[in-house]
Amino acid sequence: MTDVQQQKSDSVAAVKHMKWWGWGVEGVAFHHDDKPAFAPFVKKIVGVELSSGQHDTGLKFDDLTVPASIAGPEVVDSLVQIVGADAVATDDHDRVVHTYGKSIRDLIRIRAGILARVPDLVVYPADEAQVQQIVDLAVASDLVVIPFGGGSNIVGSLEPLPAETRTIVSLDMGRLDRVLDIDEDSGLARIQAGGQGPDLEEQLNARGWTLGHFPDSFTHSTLGGWVATRSSGMQSDKYGDIADITKGLRVVRPGGVLAIRAVPSASTGPSLREMIIGSEGRLGVITEVTAQVHRLPEKREILAYLFPSWHDGLAAMQAIAESDASPSVTRVSDSHETAFSFATSKPGKGISQKITDLLPTLLKAKGWDVDAMCLSFIGYEGGPEHVARTQKTVGRIVKANRGMAVGTGPGKLYDQKKFDTPYLRDFFMDHGGAADVSETAAPWSKLRDVSSRVYAAANQAFDRIGVQGWIMGHLSHSYHSGACLYFTFAFEHGDDAEAQYDVVKHAIQQAFIDTGATVSHHHGVGLEHQPWMSQDVSPEGVAVMQGLFDSADPGRVFNPGKVTGA
Amino acid sequence: MTDVQQQKSDSVAAVKHMKWWGWGVEGVAFHHDDKPAFAPFVKKIVGVELSSGQHDTGLKFDDLTVPASIAGPEVVDSLVQIVGADAVATDDHDRVVHTYGKSIRDLIRIRAGILARVPDLVVYPADEAQVQQIVDLAVASDLVVIPFGGGSNIVGSLEPLPAETRTIVSLDMGRLDRVLDIDEDSGLARIQAGGQGPDLEEQLNARGWTLGHFPDSFTHSTLGGWVATRSSGMQSDKYGDIADITKGLRVVRPGGVLAIRAVPSASTGPSLREMIIGSEGRLGVITEVTAQVHRLPEKREILAYLFPSWHDGLAAMQAIAESDASPSVTRVSDSHETAFSFATSKPGKGISQKITDLLPTLLKAKGWDVDAMCLSFIGYEGGPEHVARTQKTVGRIVKANRGMAVGTGPGKLYDQKKFDTPYLRDFFMDHGGAADVSETAAPWSKLRDVSSRVYAAANQAFDRIGVQGWIMGHLSHSYHSGACLYFTFAFEHGDDAEAQYDVVKHAIQQAFIDTGATVSHHHGVGLEHQPWMSQDVSPEGVAVMQGLFDSADPGRVFNPGKVTGA
Repeated sequence: MTDVQQQKSDSVAAVKHMKWWGWGVEGVAFHHDDKPAFAPFVKKIVGVELSSGQHDTGLKFDDLTVPASIAGPEVVDSLVQIVGADAVATDDHDRVVHTYGKSIRDLIRIRAGILARVPDLVVYPADEAQVQQIVDLAVASDLVVIPFGGGSNIVGSLEPLPAETRTIVSLDMGRLDRVLDIDEDSGLARIQAGGQGPDLEEQLNARGWTLGHFPDSFTHSTLGGWVATRSSGMQSDKYGDIADITKGLRVVRPGGVLAIRAVPSASTGPSLREMIIGSEGRLGVITEVTAQVHRLPEKREILAYLFPSWHDGLAAMQAIAESDASPSVTRVSDSHETAFSFATSKPGKGISQKITDLLPTLLKAKGWDVDAMCLSFIGYEGGPEHVARTQKTVGRIVKANRGMAVGTGPGKLYDQKKFDTPYLRDFFMDHGGAADVSETAAPWSKLRDVSSRVYAAANQAFDRIGVQGWIMGHLSHSYHSGACLYFTFAFEHGDDAEAQYDVVKHAIQQAFIDTGATVSHHHGVGLEHQPWMSQDVSPEGVAVMQGLFDSADPGRVFNPGKVTGA
Repeated sequence: MTDVQQQKSDSVAAVKHMKWWGWGVEGVAFHHDDKPAFAPFVKKIVGVELSSGQHDTGLKFDDLTVPASIAGPEVVDSLVQIVGADAVATDDHDRVVHTYGKSIRDLIRIRAGILARVPDLVVYPADEAQVQQIVDLAVASDLVVIPFGGGSNIVGSLEPLPAETRTIVSLDMGRLDRVLDIDEDSGLARIQAGGQGPDLEEQLNARGWTLGHFPDSFTHSTLGGWVATRSSGMQSDKYGDIADITKGLRVVRPGGVLAIRAVPSASTGPSLREMIIGSEGRLGVITEVTAQVHRLPEKREILAYLFPSWHDGLAAMQAIAESDASPSVTRVSDSHETAFSFATSKPGKGISQKITDLLPTLLKAKGWDVDAMCLSFIGYEGGPEHVARTQKTVGRIVKANRGMAVGTGPGKLYDQKKFDTPYLRDFFMDHGGAADVSETAAPWSKLRDVSSRVYAAANQAFDRIGVQGWIMGHLSHSYHSGACLYFTFAFEHGDDAEAQYDVVKHAIQQAFIDTGATVSHHHGVGLEHQPWMSQDVSPEGVAVMQGLFDSADPGRVFNPGKVTGA
């Protein structure tokens, strides 16, 4: 057991937040000046005209009308006594930053100045003892507590219910951001829940370890948030989903801490660990996670491959999952997403260049249809021998499924740029576009059907709302019995962007359910996925879950209304 | 999707049960006539004199005083209407068979004719619809329902509470024993919960598939029982614990079926799947499991190895877990269990012979202490190339940890005999001995401490009760962050065998808790492990679990009192 000593500030001022109106930090924005194919591509697929250069959104915080805080002086005083005056915020900016996550609905609403209900105050506890006092105060004083990590949620887990009349406390976990210690013998790290991805990896990497959890939100999401929403990451094929990574847990409950031992497996009744995972704040406040960590791999490589069709790409991923190979990433884009990737590349380098160079030969020699072509990334991590052997096995499988390797260049670029897409969405919104994602998991036997019915459902939805829409997807994780499919959809919205979005989102989610897939593979439920819960886990399942919440939180203090609605 | 058509009888008469007084089927018994080292060894370690030949227990069912059934005619009539007269049993033999599992406490009590409370009747539903009717009747009529699989439980999950005044129905799932279909594309099999291990494997093997789940109880336990108790098997290193294998579930709840889709992973709130797993009947009746299945491996081999000490053996298992190798079995016995294995071998063949032949060379060349020597079995499954490569990697690690390979012979024998140990226990009991097992899991960093403190605790307990006792153990499963340790203890009991057992069992379980290990890795909680639950998962955890049970089963109809007590 080694104490990881990090000189980290735990001041309130050091807690990082994203922009109130969009993804990421101020000053970083997408532009396409070096990607000449991008604007024409977007114009073609959704009819949106993109401006060049950096775009000024014109959004001003002062234009917002923020509902006044209803927190009474007694509540504020009590919280100040617990965390100190500097750790209780009642100013409008802090409250607004803690109102929404970053789904397209959230961004549409915040950009339109829609703030039905805003947390009445934000508290920044410095440690678990303070969290306990806040939780106990909340129960005693009938407050509502909404735990807040990085604020990256995209299913409505963070927003207060509009009709809530009690005082709402947003409990920002940002000061609890330390790797407390690493059991190097066991590969187990005790980590505070409020640490954001890059900060945690930095602390772990400094000791030669990695968590191996890299969701799309990585740069702005927290370990506690990952656990609370059942997150999955880009390298979960190797490292497991957060449910696999999470061994021990500490959760502040009214009156005390629910503590789960960090043992590799246990047969102690229904899994409390698996009740906390995915609980989205409804069972208490996660303060600490003992997570499985791995030594940094000696070698790490992402190779790109091309397949003549989506079916070939899927068949290859399935064959890889069935084989003895164990790559760290298995990803294949459908033809739409492949075309999108090429359009966002810079000429002379980038994903497309090498492929563009190869194309004439490819098409002639193989007779491929360039519009059906699918780009795949397979990741390899481990000792050089393991990496070489896995690449060889995968290479054979790719070839057997009519695919071809296109080297490490595109993979390197993918690796560097993989967290940038949300900035693109903000830029797209600046020009009247709406884009968001839906993801699911299904058995191998159903994936083709899921994919084609999601396309059909989205296109029907686009027709219904009278827009030129676009949908694209990829397989993002493989399991023994199936895979995760991840879809991105976009359209130029009209005046009622939120209602239009709802039509498209609804159509896609219902297609998941109708094909036997799940309503969500790793984004959680929040408010947005609730309408499909009883179809997914059966009404009896929702009732059991509701019973769990009601018995654990009879006062509906902890993020009420999320996951199950009641 | 292929329907698996099997000509299986679903008659009540075809439902298999174990002996009322011991393990397994009538007519099969342990004897040691071909194992000359065995009786002297047992005499030495626990002072028990074993007779030769087959032993007649002298136990007669007619000597038992079985409390009369309190089931009223209305209840019996209602059940007969649901399942038919031949599927409702009220005879004493059937009721007694459904009273206990097969823990040492169970066997001590049944051999002593202690029957505080016996199920009032046994029902054998033919399908899920009948289970639903029984469940609904039980809720409406305030009955108690205890689901029954193979009856192999050893933690008291099956026995009725002595003070129960309501009519108790043992719900025997034995007629629901079919593999319903196999999704060959996805490696998912839809299987009825009441099928016993060998029957299920036979149905799967016939189609080229295996579940890969082989607990010690395999020959007499059911899929539903495995799920209900969070089982783990001998090859779980490769195939996963039952929690990994279980994808979809159907659970009959009052008023309807809780159905969980068989998707590879989902982010739909707290995991209902993981609440049902380990629920020991308290959340309803599991009728169907969609399980991950694997194609039968091309090659399958178990190799034996020897290590000069327990610490070397553990270090090797840890290094294997950290390596790129993925064996199907990782097992190493401590020196006591190694000595026991040698003593139970037949001369001329068996585990010991090859090793005995090697010993003089070994000891001279390597300077090993023969009393400290530890026997290990590592299993390999997959394609020939994978098996060869894994064996090579493991071979290197074994050597680096001062161990040596001793070939496939002992492994083959281990493989054939691995389910026979419980028969030995019955024979041992015939001679005044008591023996049982305790198992746990802990991080790698704690295993040595767990092991030595368990030994110390057991030996102190033996002293306290004034017996010559024996304890032995092995590592039975490896994970990234730790392993399962499995202990067997034995002593010659006095008049109060149950009280003596409690002292020893208590000491061992408390040593688990005190060293940071868990109260159980794969045996469940039942009644026997309850005393340590709040130390293991914290009082707050037990309260949340109790809340789940209370909300899901306010009438305490479903196996009340198990897992949490209330």
